[in-house]
Amino acid sequence: MRRWNGWGDDSFHLELPDNGIDFLRERLGTAEPLPEATLEAVCKQVPKSRIPAHDHVYTDSETRIRHARGQSLPDWLAMRSGEFGVFPDAVALPETSEQVAELLQWARKQDLVVIPYGGGTSVAGHINPADSGKPVLTLSLARMNRMVDLDPESQIATFGAGTPGPLVESQLLAQGYTLGHFPQSFELSTIGGWVASRSSGQQSLRYGRIEQLFAGGRIQTFDGTWDIPTFPASAAGPDPREIVLGSEGRFGIITEVKVRVMPVPDRESFHVLFFPNWEQARSCARRLVQNRTFLSMLRLSNVVETETQLALAGHPRMIGGLEKFLKWRGAGEGKCMMTVGLTGTPLQCRTGLGELKQIARDYDGVYAGTYLGRKWEAKRFTMPYLREALWQGGYVVDTLETATDWDNVDTLMARIEQTLRQGLEADGEPVHVFTHLSHVYSQGCSIYTTYVFRCADSYSETQARWARLKHAASEVIVRNRGTISHQHGVGRDHAPYLPIEKGPVTMMVLRSLSRTLDPDQRLAPGVLLDDQTASEVSNDS
Amino acid sequence: MRRWNGWGDDSFHLELPDNGIDFLRERLGTAEPLPEATLEAVCKQVPKSRIPAHDHVYTDSETRIRHARGQSLPDWLAMRSGEFGVFPDAVALPETSEQVAELLQWARKQDLVVIPYGGGTSVAGHINPADSGKPVLTLSLARMNRMVDLDPESQIATFGAGTPGPLVESQLLAQGYTLGHFPQSFELSTIGGWVASRSSGQQSLRYGRIEQLFAGGRIQTFDGTWDIPTFPASAAGPDPREIVLGSEGRFGIITEVKVRVMPVPDRESFHVLFFPNWEQARSCARRLVQNRTFLSMLRLSNVVETETQLALAGHPRMIGGLEKFLKWRGAGEGKCMMTVGLTGTPLQCRTGLGELKQIARDYDGVYAGTYLGRKWEAKRFTMPYLREALWQGGYVVDTLETATDWDNVDTLMARIEQTLRQGLEADGEPVHVFTHLSHVYSQGCSIYTTYVFRCADSYSETQARWARLKHAASEVIVRNRGTISHQHGVGRDHAPYLPIEKGPVTMMVLRSLSRTLDPDQRLAPGVLLDDQTASEVSNDS
Repeated sequence: MRRWNGWGDDSFHLELPDNGIDFLRERLGTAEPLPEATLEAVCKQVPKSRIPAHDHVYTDSETRIRHARGQSLPDWLAMRSGEFGVFPDAVALPETSEQVAELLQWARKQDLVVIPYGGGTSVAGHINPADSGKPVLTLSLARMNRMVDLDPESQIATFGAGTPGPLVESQLLAQGYTLGHFPQSFELSTIGGWVASRSSGQQSLRYGRIEQLFAGGRIQTFDGTWDIPTFPASAAGPDPREIVLGSEGRFGIITEVKVRVMPVPDRESFHVLFFPNWEQARSCARRLVQNRTFLSMLRLSNVVETETQLALAGHPRMIGGLEKFLKWRGAGEGKCMMTVGLTGTPLQCRTGLGELKQIARDYDGVYAGTYLGRKWEAKRFTMPYLREALWQGGYVVDTLETATDWDNVDTLMARIEQTLRQGLEADGEPVHVFTHLSHVYSQGCSIYTTYVFRCADSYSETQARWARLKHAASEVIVRNRGTISHQHGVGRDHAPYLPIEKGPVTMMVLRSLSRTLDPDQRLAPGVLLDDQTASEVSNDS
Repeated sequence: MRRWNGWGDDSFHLELPDNGIDFLRERLGTAEPLPEATLEAVCKQVPKSRIPAHDHVYTDSETRIRHARGQSLPDWLAMRSGEFGVFPDAVALPETSEQVAELLQWARKQDLVVIPYGGGTSVAGHINPADSGKPVLTLSLARMNRMVDLDPESQIATFGAGTPGPLVESQLLAQGYTLGHFPQSFELSTIGGWVASRSSGQQSLRYGRIEQLFAGGRIQTFDGTWDIPTFPASAAGPDPREIVLGSEGRFGIITEVKVRVMPVPDRESFHVLFFPNWEQARSCARRLVQNRTFLSMLRLSNVVETETQLALAGHPRMIGGLEKFLKWRGAGEGKCMMTVGLTGTPLQCRTGLGELKQIARDYDGVYAGTYLGRKWEAKRFTMPYLREALWQGGYVVDTLETATDWDNVDTLMARIEQTLRQGLEADGEPVHVFTHLSHVYSQGCSIYTTYVFRCADSYSETQARWARLKHAASEVIVRNRGTISHQHGVGRDHAPYLPIEKGPVTMMVLRSLSRTLDPDQRLAPGVLLDDQTASEVSNDS
């Protein structure tokens, strides 16, 4: 069953190898986990709902608890401590787009706040209710999880917005198709959530981001049904899809999503290469993407992440052998690991692999075959379970991500890492920090940084440590040509930094759109657009 | 020198081969050109300017005439007849973004209408002044035509918005780069105009549409300077670039454009194939693009266009030989011509050509080498001159374009062609109609239809014939899942059909954006957003 207070299914446990825990102890010291609240205890805290009875609306405590929080680190700490703060007053589970429209009108009459809810996988506070004085209705699309149409000629599939990743792919696979959108949250996140938050999948190099996949659909607004027709391309004014993409529930509720799909590829394989140092590895990544080499994925770990990944991989004897081989080939200390996907026809894959090896040679890359690639593939969606495993060891893990142009990648990565590494110096606490580039574009790439630190001796101090790190790193990102998010979205947590990134005219435009489509500011208030400025956040923390 | 009353440079003449004119006479009957106004005569009509003197602002008659009209058919008839109707009161030629900002504030104080002007190549009435009672200032970006920065690492170039195609490419070429954006209007249209109108270039299959190339830039608005920073990708809310793209001057004046560029490719070649019939040709085009075959262009002519192109190609003996060969290979009457571009590294081009030939075989395609491809390449930007050549023969030519999903391509193409072919039956006039697919996507393609008819014996009746054809075809497009424009934009001519395509919520959003950024509705009023509905247009014509 799905965990009520953490990621994923409670029957699945990601075990850390012994040397993995040793690796962290060496760097961060030994640690103790904090005591956890039980579901029963939290149920007792849930106040009486302020929302009257209605079809498709549930007010029982457990349902409200299970829809109160996402998967950010503050959400995790709230769920583990049992200190939730605000709960939604009710959860609606409509089954049709018409029921969503009807619920919106009802919410207006009842003067409710409405929070659209997909898979509940937000790591930026998208779905957390706030204490506004108004009752909060969380509107889950979970029951709208079916493929309702597939046009094989135009390669367009239509889904209920609440369809989670595995149901998207299995319903398509039954007809020989794939969407190819594989965010790390794939197991739980939904197709509507991907659109609302401008998600990116691991193989975006082949399939594109959700922006390229989203072809049209249906959004319920307070002004009626917003149907966005499908066109392969259009010069007829600004594209309405682009206003929905990233709207994070502020403009309406996405109920139906049409996406561009492809036949299941003939071939797919994942390969690993090592480079002697970061400079050569990053230059090779840039060259490959700017060369339009036919790859479906390119992921590049920096030195510390490479070291960490090899330490956490288990099989120390085999990894030791690999490292000897790599050292002999010139990739010793300071080496960086690149994982590459090849997907397509046999000829396309052969050509891509040929170009990959040829270009990698110019940067002293060592081709290490598909063994580690298969390992990556097997674990590609299990990383979110790592938080549970580390938590049990007394460690807290979180990730930060941004994107920037190639000329700024090294500078921004170094500043983010340094900021995090030094972020708890006042407490005398080290922070273990490592980074990979997870998505590459001709113009630049994403920067995905993981940071691990020890639990403090209370939840509130652990949360305060996180807040200091998160705020400092967010400031560094938006003050140094990074976007506040490449794939996680804005939510509440990033909203204070958005005006620095976007500037006053874009903010005016976004606020105007929100007021036009939601005059009472009833939809997900505080998400995406916030009146609190970054300097106020700074003073808070 | 640039023609004051038609397309391009007046030293260039596109000669029709003799058999080309015979071909049209056979289908449409003999025709007589209409008498033309002289520049001197039109100069005398230009009324006194209502705009006071100002730096960078010109009020002489010739400058005002040369900025009064674009290149739509009604524009052509106005210029040839000398019946311009409204002239702009003045033309501003600022040299910097700051001067544009200052001019906007001045226009507000003087209560002027402001029409942003790029290359003046609009074929949808984007730049035509209307009689609103307010003086009209046409603001040309022509003097902002330089590349101001090139970042070779991130492959981003920054241009003044008024830089025309040839100056974009020559300034990039000097550093070994290309933008790869080649609309047919390339000779005169500008980089800012491409962004404002969501332009598409002939090799969009490799380089992408302007949406994929536009990385950020500067827009002057009544609320100040709107700077859009560059990111390779972002999940931080709706993308402001997408609000500027297709804004057609309604939200502000684009002064600086940052674009994603590439090194000049190693190899480029254009190849031609013939197919026995439309069904097989169209199926092959779809298969090639859905297979992600590495092509830079795919253009497919239908039966009548293939016939027309071969007739107008000249060299009847050589074409006769080719047709014998094709007939022997199974592509006789009913054959369709496909032109394909291959651009990239030698390996990429070789792989692409291999896949192309292999897939074409499944559809009985006959590979005809690069001879006709080179012919196409040599003439790729001269087609706009064809109007001049036909006009001298007494014929009027115009084009219509849309895009739709693959499942609807044949239906929509047939309806558009039938509507145009029968459109002047009441006058007893035939219309020669042919089509090609100019841009292909996995989801669908563009449909680009050319129609030729005889001049009537007056300008007003010629214009009325055009209006009947244009309105009927536009209705067919938006009522049958087509977009009102795939690459030409909306302007004034398509504005009445936009609400049918976009629906009420998108229209409300676009109107709200326009009111937010231009509260006095001073920028290009009537363009993109219009209060006149399609049914009113229908009653007008």
